[in-house]
Amino acid sequence: MEIQTNCNVKRKCASYTVDTKSKSGFSMSNNKTAVVIESSFHVRYAETDAMAVVHHAAYLVYFEEARSHYMRELGSDYAHMERDGFRLPVTEVSLRYVGSLRYGDRVLVRVWVAQNKSRRIDFAYEVRNAEDDAILVTGTTQHIWTDHSGKVTRAPKQWLQMMSA
Amino acid sequence: MEIQTNCNVKRKCASYTVDTKSKSGFSMSNNKTAVVIESSFHVRYAETDAMAVVHHAAYLVYFEEARSHYMRELGSDYAHMERDGFRLPVTEVSLRYVGSLRYGDRVLVRVWVAQNKSRRIDFAYEVRNAEDDAILVTGTTQHIWTDHSGKVTRAPKQWLQMMSA
Amino acid sequence: MEIQTNCNVKRKCASYTVDTKSKSGFSMSNNKTAVVIESSFHVRYAETDAMAVVHHAAYLVYFEEARSHYMRELGSDYAHMERDGFRLPVTEVSLRYVGSLRYGDRVLVRVWVAQNKSRRIDFAYEVRNAEDDAILVTGTTQHIWTDHSGKVTRAPKQWLQMMSA
Amino acid sequence: MEIQTNCNVKRKCASYTVDTKSKSGFSMSNNKTAVVIESSFHVRYAETDAMAVVHHAAYLVYFEEARSHYMRELGSDYAHMERDGFRLPVTEVSLRYVGSLRYGDRVLVRVWVAQNKSRRIDFAYEVRNAEDDAILVTGTTQHIWTDHSGKVTRAPKQWLQMMSA
Repeated sequence: MEIQTNCNVKRKCASYTVDTKSKSGFSMSNNKTAVVIESSFHVRYAETDAMAVVHHAAYLVYFEEARSHYMRELGSDYAHMERDGFRLPVTEVSLRYVGSLRYGDRVLVRVWVAQNKSRRIDFAYEVRNAEDDAILVTGTTQHIWTDHSGKVTRAPKQWLQMMSA
Repeated sequence: MEIQTNCNVKRKCASYTVDTKSKSGFSMSNNKTAVVIESSFHVRYAETDAMAVVHHAAYLVYFEEARSHYMRELGSDYAHMERDGFRLPVTEVSLRYVGSLRYGDRVLVRVWVAQNKSRRIDFAYEVRNAEDDAILVTGTTQHIWTDHSGKVTRAPKQWLQMMSA
Repeated sequence: MEIQTNCNVKRKCASYTVDTKSKSGFSMSNNKTAVVIESSFHVRYAETDAMAVVHHAAYLVYFEEARSHYMRELGSDYAHMERDGFRLPVTEVSLRYVGSLRYGDRVLVRVWVAQNKSRRIDFAYEVRNAEDDAILVTGTTQHIWTDHSGKVTRAPKQWLQMMSA
Repeated sequence: MEIQTNCNVKRKCASYTVDTKSKSGFSMSNNKTAVVIESSFHVRYAETDAMAVVHHAAYLVYFEEARSHYMRELGSDYAHMERDGFRLPVTEVSLRYVGSLRYGDRVLVRVWVAQNKSRRIDFAYEVRNAEDDAILVTGTTQHIWTDHSGKVTRAPKQWLQMMSA
């Protein structure tokens, strides 16, 4: 799958090819383009564990921060959507760990929307070491849109318009 | 799948039936029994997030603590295995969230070995609210045995003997 | 300072003497007794860092869990007080680290009320290794009572009655 | 206390005045200048708690990340010092909370060396909301230099030279 370079929204955006036959735990339909947003930050010492590598649960926090960044970059800040009464709880996650990060490393997370439906979104992620670009962790998260009370609802219009742009 | 009541190792152990047709995200072969170990503890305030429920990444920490408890209960403390030079890094995880926990709730985690091979173990988990026994989160973690340097190795003999007991 | 053995509320309670001349970072007025409540649990792997010891920020989470346990034990669950509209935000903390805990260790936290006023509470803490009883970390947390909106308020009556019992 | 603008090492650096009579919980001797390094990043959702604000323990992680950034900016990466066998464990911390951060906010942390001795360093911190510059949390951390085995040692030469530059 090829990922679009010439992004049609105002922002910096990445471009690369996802090997759809890879064992990376997520599958994407071919002949589709997705906007990929990159986040980069240093490993925090608190995120390491006694094996001297980043603890496996920390990657879910990296995913979440990358997802937040994705929404901010595309002009649809999740903090604003929360204030408007929308929630996007996680219903399913899967992660595959093929390498590790250490304190001192710089993390690079790539995130894109793997599936966008009226009541559900799936995001896919790749975590790389920013130095050598080696893929370390891949994963997906699935979400449903709910209102403030937890009842399933349709995605905010702003979001759907942005996604179909 | 029925889970064994009369455990053949010295410990308290749980007994219940896993519905293999459930959507719970893990599959176990039929006609097999597994020792299920329960852990129970209170939700910590720090584990909640702005949705007022336990953050989805915290369940990986609950799984890990339940796994540690499993090993301690079966007489094969992971802390000892680490001191003996073994590591059991996580290679894959999947979680499905169908409900949530709040501060004030008591967590009940059930863990069992879903697959035990010479170089690999898979654990399966169920997280319930200890009050009403509702299943909230299910999941699996896959691990490989490595030595201190990260090289894949055979499981410690103690572990294999215990598992085949 | 001697800490009361014969507790006058229905609960298991601890008894020991706090050396008021110790370097432990908190001071308590003499000739006073305080109810000390103990919590004990295993170090979680996720709480360790690349130095292979419990990360220094995790002790604030231990303190918080010990404080929660204190309230539950004394019959004044903080979860209930939150549902009644009270909040007890932290306004100040101090911690002194003299030793460390590793994965495999069992933590013992002792907590008591160092000062109890109409709008404020101070708690004091000792963290020990449950095996050898060595003091590892001491600290204090200061809190104010607020209502749901964050406005400073008087402590819940239930709490004041319990404290003066 | 005035904080130096014209920094004599190669890096971007901040300049502002610390009110030494403030209630901010730390004291610095007058007539001294310190290099202040700023870090800025978004609040992560996982760092919030059920009060919908950043959990009080997360500020210790912010401090740590700001300290790491300070060292990287000054050309003395802690990750390198660790590889050289040095450790800088925390021996004491204090934090004062006067405001709070929410998901969607951008954090600004200012850090400087409050005291630098041959075997010990103290850092001081201010956390602000990057939008309105309001001070939210102040604090200090004290550290000792140790070798790999935990024995107290002198600071790395590189560090002392940099600090006296």
